Amino acid sequence: MSDEFKTVAVVGRSQDMRVAEPMALLAGYLNEAGVDVITTPDTPAELPARQLDAVDIGAQAALIIAVGGDGTMLYAAALAKNDGVPLLGVNRGRLGFLADITPDDMLASVGQVLAGNYASESRMVLDASLLRSDGSETAASGLNDVVVQRQGTGRMLDIRTSIAGRFVNTHSGDGLIVATPTGSTAYALSCGGPIIQPGMGALVVVPICPHTLSDRPLVVPAEREIEIRILARLDARAEVMVDGHVLGEMTPDDRLRINRAGERINLVHPPGYDFYEILRTKLHWGRDNRLRDIGADSDGN
Amino acid sequence: MSDEFKTVAVVGRSQDMRVAEPMALLAGYLNEAGVDVITTPDTPAELPARQLDAVDIGAQAALIIAVGGDGTMLYAAALAKNDGVPLLGVNRGRLGFLADITPDDMLASVGQVLAGNYASESRMVLDASLLRSDGSETAASGLNDVVVQRQGTGRMLDIRTSIAGRFVNTHSGDGLIVATPTGSTAYALSCGGPIIQPGMGALVVVPICPHTLSDRPLVVPAEREIEIRILARLDARAEVMVDGHVLGEMTPDDRLRINRAGERINLVHPPGYDFYEILRTKLHWGRDNRLRDIGADSDGN
Amino acid sequence: MSDEFKTVAVVGRSQDMRVAEPMALLAGYLNEAGVDVITTPDTPAELPARQLDAVDIGAQAALIIAVGGDGTMLYAAALAKNDGVPLLGVNRGRLGFLADITPDDMLASVGQVLAGNYASESRMVLDASLLRSDGSETAASGLNDVVVQRQGTGRMLDIRTSIAGRFVNTHSGDGLIVATPTGSTAYALSCGGPIIQPGMGALVVVPICPHTLSDRPLVVPAEREIEIRILARLDARAEVMVDGHVLGEMTPDDRLRINRAGERINLVHPPGYDFYEILRTKLHWGRDNRLRDIGADSDGN
Amino acid sequence: MSDEFKTVAVVGRSQDMRVAEPMALLAGYLNEAGVDVITTPDTPAELPARQLDAVDIGAQAALIIAVGGDGTMLYAAALAKNDGVPLLGVNRGRLGFLADITPDDMLASVGQVLAGNYASESRMVLDASLLRSDGSETAASGLNDVVVQRQGTGRMLDIRTSIAGRFVNTHSGDGLIVATPTGSTAYALSCGGPIIQPGMGALVVVPICPHTLSDRPLVVPAEREIEIRILARLDARAEVMVDGHVLGEMTPDDRLRINRAGERINLVHPPGYDFYEILRTKLHWGRDNRLRDIGADSDGN
Repeated sequence: MSDEFKTVAVVGRSQDMRVAEPMALLAGYLNEAGVDVITTPDTPAELPARQLDAVDIGAQAALIIAVGGDGTMLYAAALAKNDGVPLLGVNRGRLGFLADITPDDMLASVGQVLAGNYASESRMVLDASLLRSDGSETAASGLNDVVVQRQGTGRMLDIRTSIAGRFVNTHSGDGLIVATPTGSTAYALSCGGPIIQPGMGALVVVPICPHTLSDRPLVVPAEREIEIRILARLDARAEVMVDGHVLGEMTPDDRLRINRAGERINLVHPPGYDFYEILRTKLHWGRDNRLRDIGADSDGN
Repeated sequence: MSDEFKTVAVVGRSQDMRVAEPMALLAGYLNEAGVDVITTPDTPAELPARQLDAVDIGAQAALIIAVGGDGTMLYAAALAKNDGVPLLGVNRGRLGFLADITPDDMLASVGQVLAGNYASESRMVLDASLLRSDGSETAASGLNDVVVQRQGTGRMLDIRTSIAGRFVNTHSGDGLIVATPTGSTAYALSCGGPIIQPGMGALVVVPICPHTLSDRPLVVPAEREIEIRILARLDARAEVMVDGHVLGEMTPDDRLRINRAGERINLVHPPGYDFYEILRTKLHWGRDNRLRDIGADSDGN
Repeated sequence: MSDEFKTVAVVGRSQDMRVAEPMALLAGYLNEAGVDVITTPDTPAELPARQLDAVDIGAQAALIIAVGGDGTMLYAAALAKNDGVPLLGVNRGRLGFLADITPDDMLASVGQVLAGNYASESRMVLDASLLRSDGSETAASGLNDVVVQRQGTGRMLDIRTSIAGRFVNTHSGDGLIVATPTGSTAYALSCGGPIIQPGMGALVVVPICPHTLSDRPLVVPAEREIEIRILARLDARAEVMVDGHVLGEMTPDDRLRINRAGERINLVHPPGYDFYEILRTKLHWGRDNRLRDIGADSDGN
Repeated sequence: MSDEFKTVAVVGRSQDMRVAEPMALLAGYLNEAGVDVITTPDTPAELPARQLDAVDIGAQAALIIAVGGDGTMLYAAALAKNDGVPLLGVNRGRLGFLADITPDDMLASVGQVLAGNYASESRMVLDASLLRSDGSETAASGLNDVVVQRQGTGRMLDIRTSIAGRFVNTHSGDGLIVATPTGSTAYALSCGGPIIQPGMGALVVVPICPHTLSDRPLVVPAEREIEIRILARLDARAEVMVDGHVLGEMTPDDRLRINRAGERINLVHPPGYDFYEILRTKLHWGRDNRLRDIGADSDGN
């Protein structure tokens, strides 16, 4: 075993038995391997791991293993971010885009990683900052996306975007997504956005159910600041979400600024990681059962 | 056994062994059941079935069983059309939209149908007629769709559509599809068209890769005549396809008229046929593996 | 002048000066023509019209003229529905799908209609009924659509649809629209639905930002009942909207039933009404400026 | 006048009078300004310009002005490529993405450029190479896109893509586009691709009418080689197009390799060039007339 990962954090939503069991299995395995295992305080006491405040996890862990799914990976990314701690993701059930180890492969894959046999990859993080008219500011960072969306029964939003200070468009519709390559396979994909290969310095701006049918996804360089305002409109209410968490309500007096963060998230994959294979698996590529009928002597007959 | 189906045609692309084998099995089973089995002349002599010219199949058969896939069903539909003979479809491999019996269920399902235990359903047929400037006319009918498409290296087409004599639009792009509900799950679906429930008296007009992004699929009543012309444009060459077969080249002097045919195709399904279940199976509904990541405590964690 | 329209209601959001002015002009014109003009109580007293409670408008008016836009037409449709009063729509600015008279043509068009020179058209209405687990029921009817949508920061919804008692699909995403042909050019179009020609007995079921990419719009016969339930999911909150108005919150214990209403809305158009022309105008068909570049000697050079 | 552009080429499809007239006007203006004007041999003799073989234009011109449209710009780009000559585009009618000077502004804009008052921008070029099984190779380069498409009545294609040697997917459908940011607003946009901001080192791989509905556009780094093969399939015939010109037929034995070219194309814009403004104009952003009806008191009423 390499000495690289002497202290490993194991995190997950342990209230869910499908998560608690692999967490216990994993913590036991790590203890036996001589690893110092740490975890968050909301974890059952019987888990063989030292409990630390969530904010201290990043400072002590040499590796964070998230058990659950891509959502737990986003949570773990927040713990890891300031300290650059690498992340490894175990899925509870189906393969995830971020959590790419299946439960069956968990111990073998973690064993390989501890032995130094892994692939590393770094992912871009977005900083979102909501500036109020009174000068106050609320900020958060995310691995997937920043979403401006209309609230509940509110009316259609008019969202004014500019990039590096240049006006782009006023998007009318249900909202707008600014997604990283990592987030391009999450919500943005459901709204018509393209898939962006991880590692690219690109963001995609995707309108949500746009009123104007030619209002299409726009891929832009990640190093330019995106500024978003909403126009005053009777009854329009908007809120800003970062990786699925509420950043705050947004009014026509506010400005939302989105920038690439200085830090990045380091992902650790077991050997053989292949982004395209994950795409093929998760999007059922090559397994569509529909026959395209183009004649009696076609392939489909 | 009911006396309903005394003469049954078994058709398929018997050059393909995956088709020839179930055809032989089926013909043997039908012979044993006392059914008079007929087939087309291109079938191997060892198939225990009387060979008839394709054009005579419809007049003699009380039921046509197509073995292969949806493409073979389209071929069998052409044999059946003028005589209203019902059709039953066996798939070579995966479930089809039209051929909805899997090889494993073949003998049991056919047995049930022969015993009078089946569901009947009738599907709309389209008549396409290409009228040349010299007064000549070429016609064909189809179960799926009529497609006007640009040829090979030809330029973008400008296609002028009118419905019941009223001008609709000039569609610029790669072509245009007019699909029946049956055809709505075939090529039209790949071009952005909706799924139309079988049995509805509706057609869908779907532009193929339209230049104008707001040029969207249009659902219209099936009883109105659709007339299509192409505009003169340097280097533009178009051809008309009906159910994947070439009807002819089309020039700016020609008119293509599409009408609902008087006849319909009668499909026979084994008991328990459910269109929605076929949709769910073939389109992988409910089996998408992608996790939509909306936060650490979401379903996806 | 024909005697058909002796009492005419003029309605609109008269707080908006761009609406109040044409309303005043129109009321004056109608008075001069000897028509008995009625209006709702929220209209300025100086409008030369008898004020009636909104609920009494339908019983007294032989024609309702809505001044404003398609939104005002939806409001007027609610006034007209029970009494079958025909509706005429004047737009404040741009042409609407329902309000198809421009301000400049207002007096001339209304004059023609009063003289009996008009086209009539009837549009389908949907009844939506939200049945609670305690046996209570909330109902509303709409000309455009019934929408089930997630609320604010709520999670993705899992929406279970069935048609005529048969299970269709569980749609995961932001929500689901059931739209009439009239509503097919409104919100449903922004969510990827097709355009459905007015007058057809068809509804379209459109998933909103569906998680499963093959979850596509489904056109179904209007005479079948659609039942919608939402599945229990931590943190999922849903609400039901009918023509943009809240019908109520929806929980996993509730059932939403959607049926074609017995009544229809009668629209009155000035002579020359052409649905396809409105489509071409409002969707910029034939006016896309983008050049599709396919070579130096193409059309685009 | 700056001395920068002493020799200027004026090119265009001068058989078209709408092109010949501004070409003559422009050549006259340039002559008067003391510029040495050159042109291609297919230009009418009365144009006041020296005629040179097309292949010699790039070596002599300090600037090429293309009159016509984006198609003519693609043609001029081929003349300019090897010598790095900057390009300026004048549109015959409507504004183009590449040819961004309107006829009305032509002389004023060209005057400013000659005076040194302009913006420069460089665009990526793709090299496509079709390698035959016999070792021969056909190559071309393009500013917009490389397209593999099925030929005429041919069947659906199965296209196997790999990037930097890694298998991505087998795309079944009408074809596949590999587009530069410049090409992302051309054919790729009609096939569902995103808009990519010019200048980014990104390509987009867009399936054309894909059979599998989850087969979505994929944005990849431009510096990786894309290799494309087509699978053997009865009756499938494919051809490769580069910027709308045929590169050749493609068989299952051939390999198509696409790489970013070493050279780039330099575009010259008059002052005030704004890509987003061109997008807004050409895609009718903000000018959609459709009212999204969400209630009687909405914006749309």
